Amino acid sequence: MTDMIGLVAAALTTLSFLPQALMVIRTGRTDGISLIMYTMFTAGVTGWLVYGFLLNSMPIIIANLVTILLASVILGLKVRHTLQARAQAATLETSAPSAS
Amino acid sequence: MTDMIGLVAAALTTLSFLPQALMVIRTGRTDGISLIMYTMFTAGVTGWLVYGFLLNSMPIIIANLVTILLASVILGLKVRHTLQARAQAATLETSAPSAS
Repeated sequence: MTDMIGLVAAALTTLSFLPQALMVIRTGRTDGISLIMYTMFTAGVTGWLVYGFLLNSMPIIIANLVTILLASVILGLKVRHTLQARAQAATLETSAPSAS
Repeated sequence: MTDMIGLVAAALTTLSFLPQALMVIRTGRTDGISLIMYTMFTAGVTGWLVYGFLLNSMPIIIANLVTILLASVILGLKVRHTLQARAQAATLETSAPSAS
């Protein structure tokens, strides 16, 4: 019973990142997503993966590998959009006169 | 060493929801956030909390209580905005003629 609750909980928290990853891919938008959150989260899940390897726990390893994969898609797109926005802002700053 | 990695991982994945919660509160926007993700995630973390109580594990209980609190703020605002958007769409449908 306890194991079953743990497994269901692991499946839910791991797979919950799938709809968010699909949403980000589909809309191509990440401005509502926190860069700090996904940086901390991906680092934390990588820590959980190392922890799983040290304990030799296959459930921890598998759950966190899937989560890393999904969170990385979201983080990767967020980083790309952040860099693009910065490059665009820098271009505007040097080529256009200030509005105010 | 193994415990330390687990603790750092737990702190990172738990506290990562703080910047996202603050962002949602500050901007008042949740349209980039997946409703399905936060519904699944909050249900999953509640499962982890029950698992922690069944194992009598204080670290699992505390980490998941904090995560539930932060994820609930995000989910609560997302649900409120989704309901507001639906009510608005229903009002427009009955009061305005169709554009096409």
